[in-house]
Amino acid sequence: MPSRYLNFRCSVPWLILSLQTLFLIRSFFVFPGAGDIYSPSNFYPEFQDVNHMVIFGFGFFLIVLRRYGFSSTGFNLLLIVLGVQCSVLVDDLLVFLSLQQSEIGMRSLAKAVVSMTAVAISSGAVLGKASPVQLIVMTLVELIIFYVSRCINRILLQVPEHLTLMHVHLFGAYFGLAVTSRFPEPAPGLDKHRSTPKSDLFSMLGTVFVWVFWPSFNSILADSKNQAVLNTYLALAVSAVAAFMLSALTSKDGKFRMTHIHSAVLAGGVTISYTASRILHPWIAMILGLLGSVITILGSHCLQRCFNRALKIQDTCGVHFTFGLPAVLGAVAAVVLVVIENGIHKQWSNLSSLGYLIFVDIGAFCQTISTALITGLITGLILNIKLLKTVHVSKYFDDQFYWEFPHLSVGF
Amino acid sequence: MPSRYLNFRCSVPWLILSLQTLFLIRSFFVFPGAGDIYSPSNFYPEFQDVNHMVIFGFGFFLIVLRRYGFSSTGFNLLLIVLGVQCSVLVDDLLVFLSLQQSEIGMRSLAKAVVSMTAVAISSGAVLGKASPVQLIVMTLVELIIFYVSRCINRILLQVPEHLTLMHVHLFGAYFGLAVTSRFPEPAPGLDKHRSTPKSDLFSMLGTVFVWVFWPSFNSILADSKNQAVLNTYLALAVSAVAAFMLSALTSKDGKFRMTHIHSAVLAGGVTISYTASRILHPWIAMILGLLGSVITILGSHCLQRCFNRALKIQDTCGVHFTFGLPAVLGAVAAVVLVVIENGIHKQWSNLSSLGYLIFVDIGAFCQTISTALITGLITGLILNIKLLKTVHVSKYFDDQFYWEFPHLSVGF
Amino acid sequence: MPSRYLNFRCSVPWLILSLQTLFLIRSFFVFPGAGDIYSPSNFYPEFQDVNHMVIFGFGFFLIVLRRYGFSSTGFNLLLIVLGVQCSVLVDDLLVFLSLQQSEIGMRSLAKAVVSMTAVAISSGAVLGKASPVQLIVMTLVELIIFYVSRCINRILLQVPEHLTLMHVHLFGAYFGLAVTSRFPEPAPGLDKHRSTPKSDLFSMLGTVFVWVFWPSFNSILADSKNQAVLNTYLALAVSAVAAFMLSALTSKDGKFRMTHIHSAVLAGGVTISYTASRILHPWIAMILGLLGSVITILGSHCLQRCFNRALKIQDTCGVHFTFGLPAVLGAVAAVVLVVIENGIHKQWSNLSSLGYLIFVDIGAFCQTISTALITGLITGLILNIKLLKTVHVSKYFDDQFYWEFPHLSVGF
Repeated sequence: MPSRYLNFRCSVPWLILSLQTLFLIRSFFVFPGAGDIYSPSNFYPEFQDVNHMVIFGFGFFLIVLRRYGFSSTGFNLLLIVLGVQCSVLVDDLLVFLSLQQSEIGMRSLAKAVVSMTAVAISSGAVLGKASPVQLIVMTLVELIIFYVSRCINRILLQVPEHLTLMHVHLFGAYFGLAVTSRFPEPAPGLDKHRSTPKSDLFSMLGTVFVWVFWPSFNSILADSKNQAVLNTYLALAVSAVAAFMLSALTSKDGKFRMTHIHSAVLAGGVTISYTASRILHPWIAMILGLLGSVITILGSHCLQRCFNRALKIQDTCGVHFTFGLPAVLGAVAAVVLVVIENGIHKQWSNLSSLGYLIFVDIGAFCQTISTALITGLITGLILNIKLLKTVHVSKYFDDQFYWEFPHLSVGF
Repeated sequence: MPSRYLNFRCSVPWLILSLQTLFLIRSFFVFPGAGDIYSPSNFYPEFQDVNHMVIFGFGFFLIVLRRYGFSSTGFNLLLIVLGVQCSVLVDDLLVFLSLQQSEIGMRSLAKAVVSMTAVAISSGAVLGKASPVQLIVMTLVELIIFYVSRCINRILLQVPEHLTLMHVHLFGAYFGLAVTSRFPEPAPGLDKHRSTPKSDLFSMLGTVFVWVFWPSFNSILADSKNQAVLNTYLALAVSAVAAFMLSALTSKDGKFRMTHIHSAVLAGGVTISYTASRILHPWIAMILGLLGSVITILGSHCLQRCFNRALKIQDTCGVHFTFGLPAVLGAVAAVVLVVIENGIHKQWSNLSSLGYLIFVDIGAFCQTISTALITGLITGLILNIKLLKTVHVSKYFDDQFYWEFPHLSVGF
Repeated sequence: MPSRYLNFRCSVPWLILSLQTLFLIRSFFVFPGAGDIYSPSNFYPEFQDVNHMVIFGFGFFLIVLRRYGFSSTGFNLLLIVLGVQCSVLVDDLLVFLSLQQSEIGMRSLAKAVVSMTAVAISSGAVLGKASPVQLIVMTLVELIIFYVSRCINRILLQVPEHLTLMHVHLFGAYFGLAVTSRFPEPAPGLDKHRSTPKSDLFSMLGTVFVWVFWPSFNSILADSKNQAVLNTYLALAVSAVAAFMLSALTSKDGKFRMTHIHSAVLAGGVTISYTASRILHPWIAMILGLLGSVITILGSHCLQRCFNRALKIQDTCGVHFTFGLPAVLGAVAAVVLVVIENGIHKQWSNLSSLGYLIFVDIGAFCQTISTALITGLITGLILNIKLLKTVHVSKYFDDQFYWEFPHLSVGF
């Protein structure tokens, strides 16, 4: 057994090295002329915000396990920097295949970082169970499939590009869930997958960071930025309020539960992501934030008691109810909004065009979620073939399996 | 007794729900036309900074108690998102009463977030003693009274609007002090209101965040932004230097004391807030930063030994010397600066106009502080009527009274 | 002995006070007219980023010792606010001596904050060993010498100003190393210079912050900002990937080591700092990031085993391999890039101009590093004369020597 562990460990650096070599070769050959990449565009502040949110925010948001702090932040950073480079590679390939227009420098990087949110979310679902090798393979597969899924949405269904990117939560959550369902369950007696007050506080730090930067995330590629920012802020505010309300209502003794707060304060941002730049009245954004929070907290109760047990899914970070359910709600809301808006404007006269718009939204949603689930299942199966599956269940949720500690450290 | 606790807990979600419903109804009816709210204005970066400072910075700045980390950050987030919505509601009401011009979207939200600083400061004074219900009631009352106080300053005393907002520290600190004086004192043997090195480190994290974003805070609504930023930065720098100097001078053995550093590094920003955009020479800003730090550290000694004991006030976070005294100094400095500037410019010829200017500044200051103290006392009394007063003294400063913990956690 | 300790402590505030008085006097007399300082320039966002990175990022990056968290963040803040003011003073002096053009407000402050990175790096080398008095003296001496060194580069070697500032890592690391070599070694049995998982997590927090803001740092004074940002981001991404790869390759059992990650993810930013705005192809930036990471991790092994032991240097934070070696690599890369670029463009026709360019780069590098080493050694000797040397070796790495603790706190 030890030799297999060793084997696995030795494979990590070579996998990373070969990937990095590939990215280097690509950047040598494929990158467009220097004039194009470095063309001045005042895109840096938004990019900075999103980068900060994904690397710092998600990195600390994921510290929920008592003994998994190093891996949560460290692997998140590794996956994102690998994934961003991989994203740019896939982008080039799509340009080469004429499926997409060439884009330049900062904007291309920003899209890559936004796409990486899918991976950050998926890695939350398998947190503590997947080894770095499995995570890296998952990252690559997920990114490529997400690009393909976006391509289908963009080309076949004519969804505008910035909206295809906003399926990132939906895709990430369901892909992660499908992957994690293929991992063996940890022993029931284990307490390493519990949180401590300290890890919860670090996670709160990350959550607040993500919360604050979410308006930048939703508006980065939108046409009407100001509108997207304002709607997202209102939705987030209402969902934070509702998170506290519902957490006290649903828990024993009327106390608040930290995991509820972590997930539900962000629900508004997820719910509104697909419609932030289209909503014309603040109260709609606020209602969506409220509903997002409701579905998250109710979902967290139902899923953990019934659904996850029935399907033997262990969703470490609760990505299903934090990102999955609000994203579904957001997609449904988008359809409803299209119906109402067009209904009001055109007095239901032009039913065929309305039908087409509904078809597009529903089609994009169904395509994304089914692609995520199917490919996620396949990826989960691939990750658990003998070649890659190397972490024994007893080593789950433990930094010491991946990180050197000067002393045996107890307690964190 | 337990039934009363339960009662209290059950009242939290319904209070929040009714408030949120109110805000939703308001946004449905009162919000101006979509074109107005979403009109493009490049105000987002400043808003983002202030939002970050208030939610992340103050949230972690308040983690000073060893067992109150969840409540400090969590309740801060809850109060701010509730308060921001309430602020917008009050704003609308004032517009409706023709006491104020209608403002749009982002700018209105930014003013709301700045106003919320008052609540964040006040909640620092009652930290660990007030239950969520009490905090929410306090937030609403404080916000409304702060708006009324600002209205008086703006309409009767013709103070420019961005300056009325800068009374936020003064109002917040003295309102909080008056409220906390009505709370029963905790038992003397309790050690839960002490800090641990770890909670101090989290608090330092928040302090540094607030420090870095303070120039944005002081300049967000100023006319001469660049000047306000530079003056604030210099004042903050000098007050940070002076904080270390005075902490070593005043403490036993010449050691530094962390609570001194927490409060005094921010003193410069508070002191200069009222005059940042008016000061024409950097050395004046630096002197103000120095004086702010001096008054904070001397104040922390005098207040904790004499004043607080005599008046039986327990000011958990030390908001009196962190925000109250420097704000008083800032108000005094504003008067002195007006006198000197006008004296120099007009050669003391036009004494009546000078007298009017002094009257305005002193009037605004006296009105703000007396309103804060009187209404704070009344609010404190209201919060301690039987209906609302539900936390027993022995449950002060304890997360476990409000939050579910999977295990009984000891130590943090 | 106690009396000497007391003496030392009493000297801290007076030293700070006299410095601050000097800065105040200077700002009263020397500051240019108000119109000049406060002239509008839209420089605030970049300044904010760099300020955030240096104060928050480096402050928490330095928390690597288990019992030195307060001092790491606290003294970092103190040194930076003192140093920034001192920088502006030195700037004025140089303007007075006509060695430099006068600059205004924000830009001058931004340059001061960038210069302070040298001090933050040097203080990492003597972390836990130098008392505040020694640190302050070191800050002043280092800043002045760095300004002189930059002046020589700018005037004699005609290096553009923003590039002279980018020698900041090189200067800071080697100055710090030379200083720390003059400090007595701690007793070997001591375990206070080890890290705990918790301090590592705080340090990771700082590292991620520095990582995210590094593109702003490298581009703040560059002409082609967009190019500098993009190159820095790519270099950082590749060096983060390589950090994980090499950490797994070089450590026992193929585990990751946190100290490797801390230093190597930043290596790319250091390596590219000197050339970020000159590199025309992304793949060059990526290769530099990779090499930076390689040299950091290999360096950390070689240096800690041989070099540091042979020279009896104890480099607490590992600044030699984190900032020193990548900066040397960056300087070498700059020369190579100049040769290749000019060789390609001018077909090797104009060898004398090429020779001049190479001479300038090598000259600036040699001048900077030798100045840093020589003056560092002298500073180290000065800091260890009887007047200043007051921390006994047994008191190294301990917050309790400098900070008041309400209770004796064990464990952090």
